[in-house]
Amino acid sequence: MSSHTHHDAPTQYIEANGIRFAYRRFGKKAGVPIVFNQHYTGTMDYWDPAVTDGLAKDREVILFNNAGVSSSSGVTPSNFQEMGANAIAFIRALGLQQVDVLGISIGGFVAQEIALQGGDLVRKIILVGTGHRGQDMTASRSNAIFSGTYDPPEHLWLDVHFKPTESSRKAGLAFLERKWRRTDRDPEVSEQTITAQGEAIGKWVTPEADSLAYLKSIKQPTLVVQGSDDAIIPTIHSLTLQHEMPDAQLIVYPDSGHGSIYQYPELFVTHATTFLDA
Amino acid sequence: MSSHTHHDAPTQYIEANGIRFAYRRFGKKAGVPIVFNQHYTGTMDYWDPAVTDGLAKDREVILFNNAGVSSSSGVTPSNFQEMGANAIAFIRALGLQQVDVLGISIGGFVAQEIALQGGDLVRKIILVGTGHRGQDMTASRSNAIFSGTYDPPEHLWLDVHFKPTESSRKAGLAFLERKWRRTDRDPEVSEQTITAQGEAIGKWVTPEADSLAYLKSIKQPTLVVQGSDDAIIPTIHSLTLQHEMPDAQLIVYPDSGHGSIYQYPELFVTHATTFLDA
Repeated sequence: MSSHTHHDAPTQYIEANGIRFAYRRFGKKAGVPIVFNQHYTGTMDYWDPAVTDGLAKDREVILFNNAGVSSSSGVTPSNFQEMGANAIAFIRALGLQQVDVLGISIGGFVAQEIALQGGDLVRKIILVGTGHRGQDMTASRSNAIFSGTYDPPEHLWLDVHFKPTESSRKAGLAFLERKWRRTDRDPEVSEQTITAQGEAIGKWVTPEADSLAYLKSIKQPTLVVQGSDDAIIPTIHSLTLQHEMPDAQLIVYPDSGHGSIYQYPELFVTHATTFLDA
Repeated sequence: MSSHTHHDAPTQYIEANGIRFAYRRFGKKAGVPIVFNQHYTGTMDYWDPAVTDGLAKDREVILFNNAGVSSSSGVTPSNFQEMGANAIAFIRALGLQQVDVLGISIGGFVAQEIALQGGDLVRKIILVGTGHRGQDMTASRSNAIFSGTYDPPEHLWLDVHFKPTESSRKAGLAFLERKWRRTDRDPEVSEQTITAQGEAIGKWVTPEADSLAYLKSIKQPTLVVQGSDDAIIPTIHSLTLQHEMPDAQLIVYPDSGHGSIYQYPELFVTHATTFLDA
């Protein structure tokens, strides 16, 4: 067992693809490590310690900033294929032969790209609050939520990740408190990252002929997790992911949104452990 | 721990509502018992021992034949409200103050009625391969499957509960083998039961204004479980159940149909235990 936790794991650096990747690695040195892929404009500090430390009880957890994001050097690409390739370069640079990957929101797009490009590198996949190429965003309130103003600004993430019910917002405030406990924090992302991630999203959601066909190629056991009412990526797309992927389970939590795993961190850790250890 | 299991639990009888209910009760005498509600034309012998014995490790499992079904006396009603009322009479006759209920297919309709009518009698609910009042059956292949001929006839249940993939049918054959191990068997259901259950289904699926409103009244924690491709009750209705019930989780299993819990009995028992013990 590493003595470190989410709050005190040191930020380390490793070079790959000409990029100096910032990462943190902690947890029990046993089995297959799990690599976390972050959402739009997020850094390593945007994860929930209740989730990362919960999973770290039984395995190594690796958080990182992809190319150009926050404390990593380089340029953020404007498509998810390149983000996936960069993530693979990072994982291989750590000397790892096999990992599990978790991705939330656009991190779920990156996780899919890692699986598509990485071959045997990926053992199992967890996709949270995410979707698929060509996904219909008509019902998404993403643009309204991200263009809103919030006091304090951090409360943007209540609207992104939680429902406007009393119970969900209460869980959201507890999540924000947890994620602010770490004092040695990443810098926020640059305008370049924000613009490039936005462009990548635009390409991702553009429908093509047979937009779903690629999902048949992701053969790894996959756990799809979602909230009942995701305001960013409509919940229905998780059912589509489950249906089109060859070996995917779906879990939907009640009274929750995009960040359902931050509303039910203990239950999610239990479900994820059941899935990863099966 | 009762020394009995699914295969050797004796059939017992208890009177309520003028009906002599046949039931079997086994498992660890601890916590809240769980009462199983069976699908169309099924008897106590149609459950999967891997599921019932799995759950019985930590709690009492109660199987029963509702009014008019198989070894129970009385007449099968032609609506689910009365089936629910009969089930409640049976549970109360056992002297139980609180139970969990599990229902598969039309047993899920009965479980919903038990929750609606039973007040505090029901603690938690598990709904498997089921739907809601007014559910759209356009995509269901139920009529074709139940009117087909099978050699041996028992293979009807492969088409009902499993997918036509090699992996799913292999799991189906293993399920059929498990459920035939018990030698002291229930008689098959009567024509009266088949007709009445069919009429009840016809009423249940007839849409009304605001067919979903009643789901808001089922406030108990609920676990909705479904296969990726249910040929009898389309999978999408499970997402609707999850969304419309105040406190429901959904789990969807891969490569599976109406009887997903018989394809993944160990995984389902783990998920159900996580849910029931939370």
